[in-house]
Amino acid sequence: MFKVRHADWDQRVRESFAQQVMAESLGLRMADCEAGRVVLEMPFNPSFVQQHGFHHAGVTTTGMDSACGYAAMSLMDADAEVLTVEFKSSLLAPAAGELFRYEGRVIRAGRTLLFTEGRAEADGKLIATMSATMMAVRGLA
Amino acid sequence: MFKVRHADWDQRVRESFAQQVMAESLGLRMADCEAGRVVLEMPFNPSFVQQHGFHHAGVTTTGMDSACGYAAMSLMDADAEVLTVEFKSSLLAPAAGELFRYEGRVIRAGRTLLFTEGRAEADGKLIATMSATMMAVRGLA
Amino acid sequence: MFKVRHADWDQRVRESFAQQVMAESLGLRMADCEAGRVVLEMPFNPSFVQQHGFHHAGVTTTGMDSACGYAAMSLMDADAEVLTVEFKSSLLAPAAGELFRYEGRVIRAGRTLLFTEGRAEADGKLIATMSATMMAVRGLA
Amino acid sequence: MFKVRHADWDQRVRESFAQQVMAESLGLRMADCEAGRVVLEMPFNPSFVQQHGFHHAGVTTTGMDSACGYAAMSLMDADAEVLTVEFKSSLLAPAAGELFRYEGRVIRAGRTLLFTEGRAEADGKLIATMSATMMAVRGLA
Repeated sequence: MFKVRHADWDQRVRESFAQQVMAESLGLRMADCEAGRVVLEMPFNPSFVQQHGFHHAGVTTTGMDSACGYAAMSLMDADAEVLTVEFKSSLLAPAAGELFRYEGRVIRAGRTLLFTEGRAEADGKLIATMSATMMAVRGLA
Repeated sequence: MFKVRHADWDQRVRESFAQQVMAESLGLRMADCEAGRVVLEMPFNPSFVQQHGFHHAGVTTTGMDSACGYAAMSLMDADAEVLTVEFKSSLLAPAAGELFRYEGRVIRAGRTLLFTEGRAEADGKLIATMSATMMAVRGLA
Repeated sequence: MFKVRHADWDQRVRESFAQQVMAESLGLRMADCEAGRVVLEMPFNPSFVQQHGFHHAGVTTTGMDSACGYAAMSLMDADAEVLTVEFKSSLLAPAAGELFRYEGRVIRAGRTLLFTEGRAEADGKLIATMSATMMAVRGLA
Repeated sequence: MFKVRHADWDQRVRESFAQQVMAESLGLRMADCEAGRVVLEMPFNPSFVQQHGFHHAGVTTTGMDSACGYAAMSLMDADAEVLTVEFKSSLLAPAAGELFRYEGRVIRAGRTLLFTEGRAEADGKLIATMSATMMAVRGLA
């Protein structure tokens, strides 16, 4: 569906994700990586619950933001890094479950800005959605 | 500015915040609590950085969401719990610094829905803003 | 997919839409109305363009907001009116074309709050998306 | 507060606004224009009401979006046009009143992206807020 701009997009995405210490701290792992679509997964982690014992909205948002960000990065030039410009999370249902799945998809890819959408599921049930804008930044390193 | 609906609002907010395991895991603490306004603080935590070594957007968002949520809860009835309906985070600058401060304020308080705004600062510099809708839910426990 | 709460939901939606003077002023008409999904259409209207000659973002947003609002209203009780709590519009491409189509869908229906998503197309091309929260308000009249 | 990039920013903003046919159709006029801050005003217009007789959320959003967009444009280079990337509107109260006032302010100005905030008032009462991302686009004409 989308044109990739770089042959090693898959490797770049995986290497960048591997450097996200927060992902490791939460227990997030990359379950799927296509051009323009990334899926992350995370088992329930009792260290990151809110006052009612469910995953904090910040966890759900982190999962969706990371999935959207790497979905965007998969379509970027070889010298570009991804930065999140903004996102909106809608929290449809409590983040209650054993296995959490976060999917990010690009819906429009410009050279500088990429529009993405995220979905979060708990044991297969939709619990949250995201609408996020990602930016390709060059010369960051 | 706002009418409180419950004499012990301060105690309720602090007790609920104390039950947020994620806040403890991140290192968030409550720095200020007024009716309709809450400030949280957190030192830089290297366990929660993204791929460039700055706090992940999910951390910044968690701080602002919690500040907004408890600002809202401070104005709720004694039997109400706070749930986040949705929020938007705008990430103005990298979350680089030593001390992070998250402020949440209520801008309109209805009995069921409360509109809030958040600000995140790193060492006094504005790094992110939030617009969030909170809901008072009764009979949750 | 969704449970309707009122036998005459279709009639209620159409009657309410007929009272939206702004819809008439813009040239919006209801093209499709199912339980939980509404499609509105509008031909290009040169009275509502921005400085580059395309439909203003406010028009695109009005179309998506109305579609989302009536999609939500179709699932509400007979005595409930629909109010928009908030929405986010992402403007993917210029609103250039002859025929504009706005689709609103409910993705989660609670008794008080309903989460919806909107899409806007110009001559079949996706130009914008919306994420909107709708509220069922009783006793308004 | 903000550095202007072009001596004739005021004239550029006013000329662009004068070309917004939608603004004229609604009755919007520019009440104030500073570097990084624009205020628009509009009397109640019965042609743009929703089903309860108040201004449609699309009108309130159009006013805030335009104010934010021109606040952003005031800080752009001479060859740049402003495009709205995305916005979120929170609708705090019904748009009921005689005189509506929409204020847009830049909260962070990059060369390509500008973050803005909007406020809408009806007869001095806050009725809505906006968080919007604007983009400087060069070579559009």
